[in-house]
Amino acid sequence: MNYYLGLDVGGTAVKMGLFNDCDVLLEKVCFPTRTIEYLVDDIYQNIKALFDKNNLSLNDLKGIGIGFPGHVDGQSGIVVYSNNLVAHNFDIVGKLKEKINTYIRISNDANVAALGEYHFGKGKELQNIVFVTLGTGVGGGIIVDGKMLEGKNGAGAEIGHMVISTNGHLCSCGRRGCFETYASATALIRNARVAMINNPTSILWEIAKSPEKLDGIAFFEALERNDKVATIIFEQYIEDLADGLTNLANIFRPDALILGGGISHRGDVLMEPLQQRLEKMIYGGQWNARVELMISSLKNDAGIYGGYAMCAKHQK
Amino acid sequence: MNYYLGLDVGGTAVKMGLFNDCDVLLEKVCFPTRTIEYLVDDIYQNIKALFDKNNLSLNDLKGIGIGFPGHVDGQSGIVVYSNNLVAHNFDIVGKLKEKINTYIRISNDANVAALGEYHFGKGKELQNIVFVTLGTGVGGGIIVDGKMLEGKNGAGAEIGHMVISTNGHLCSCGRRGCFETYASATALIRNARVAMINNPTSILWEIAKSPEKLDGIAFFEALERNDKVATIIFEQYIEDLADGLTNLANIFRPDALILGGGISHRGDVLMEPLQQRLEKMIYGGQWNARVELMISSLKNDAGIYGGYAMCAKHQK
Repeated sequence: MNYYLGLDVGGTAVKMGLFNDCDVLLEKVCFPTRTIEYLVDDIYQNIKALFDKNNLSLNDLKGIGIGFPGHVDGQSGIVVYSNNLVAHNFDIVGKLKEKINTYIRISNDANVAALGEYHFGKGKELQNIVFVTLGTGVGGGIIVDGKMLEGKNGAGAEIGHMVISTNGHLCSCGRRGCFETYASATALIRNARVAMINNPTSILWEIAKSPEKLDGIAFFEALERNDKVATIIFEQYIEDLADGLTNLANIFRPDALILGGGISHRGDVLMEPLQQRLEKMIYGGQWNARVELMISSLKNDAGIYGGYAMCAKHQK
Repeated sequence: MNYYLGLDVGGTAVKMGLFNDCDVLLEKVCFPTRTIEYLVDDIYQNIKALFDKNNLSLNDLKGIGIGFPGHVDGQSGIVVYSNNLVAHNFDIVGKLKEKINTYIRISNDANVAALGEYHFGKGKELQNIVFVTLGTGVGGGIIVDGKMLEGKNGAGAEIGHMVISTNGHLCSCGRRGCFETYASATALIRNARVAMINNPTSILWEIAKSPEKLDGIAFFEALERNDKVATIIFEQYIEDLADGLTNLANIFRPDALILGGGISHRGDVLMEPLQQRLEKMIYGGQWNARVELMISSLKNDAGIYGGYAMCAKHQK
């Protein structure tokens, strides 16, 4: 039997999934992310421990697929830049290959999660998907005919840095009006805090006590309780999110736009108005085929499934 | 010897190129576009005449590749909708196959021009390109690993309908702030006309006489003569165009953005400030590889070269 590992490297933890070549996830492990200097050795030790525990030989490990936060060059296997792990031109694949002689493939974590969703989640029956994560920022992974769209040196798919509003909110990338500054969870909470300050009678005060303490949970509680301020903020959020998603639908016309990240778990309160707006605004609405809007089904496991797909399907 | 035909169907004329399988364009012909009812027969008659004239047999015609304006489903060979030729669900490939038994492939004209530029123009040595035409509207063709990105039912690559300015100019598609309403030649002239009306001393009056008579030639003459109004309008145009192009660079991170259409022929006056802005605004500027900005080299022949590439490369 051949075995594969899917790794999802995050800022606080590394998730690792052991797969056999029948697409079965045999075991999941998770270990803390220390700094980049320790990463390769930590990965190696955890792989060894996992294989020992399962009485497996590393000779049967036929591939490792890694999702990594930041700008990663899949062809050279080098992490060009990662803000999250404070890494710059770090040859992670080269260093890991010195310890384990197998096929190793790396890409940006959102690309890899998209590939996971494509092969094993909501994208299973589809040809093209655009995967959008709504979290601290807005990340994206684009799968065209089964391939990740990585771009030159792996720098593509930065859909969060598509300006949707010239002269809009200042983005960390230096431009103004990026999709991320409107559609991330951070943006939603930023807007809700401002509205809270301007509306002393909002239920947001009762729930969160102060603007600094307002978080997603408190915001959605106020929304459920029909707070007017929260409702207005959320309607604007939906509009802006729909604008960016419609752009992506017009550019890629995928079979589906799949949403991931914390906000996507809110379900119908988000998805119903979003689908309505998308259908209304999409180019050539009446003549063109529908773009489905879906919520990621693999959730936190999309990365490890994607890592497996990236190293296993590649060799099949 | 095998022969191929590349066809570029336009609103006023059909251009047709005869190629051998050594990539040589042997002859170009052009005939007027009548209405959609006559199109298939006109194409057939012109092909027959061209083959007769060259003493060639239609048995040696190994493929026809067609670029068509509008929304075209490449897989089914059906023109879903074309505003330009007033066609709706028109089975052009099926009808043409009834007359000529060969491989026939159709796609949107901008996709096909991009493929031509990719194989035979500025994209020759490159892996991924985004081709942007700046004309009456803003069209796009995206080539990833040698394949046109067509999207579901061929409805993708509508880059002109990416909103860059929420609540901006009203677009023919129904949304506000589409890239096309800022970066098309139409948009440039629209803005120049408004500025002309507001500035009675502008050289634009001397050159164009009236706002209705202002066209691209007059505008660029005023710009060359350092007219202040034309300069301000053009600087704003560059900013907006750069915004959309930077979005595309961040999403696709292609090797090159290739510009076509009338405005692209203006050369350095356009390209130099545009490249500067692109480099300043692109995501992760200092860490990432440069995206080249280029002017299409095949110009009006990109479509017929692309038609050839689409039917010939596909079979090789």
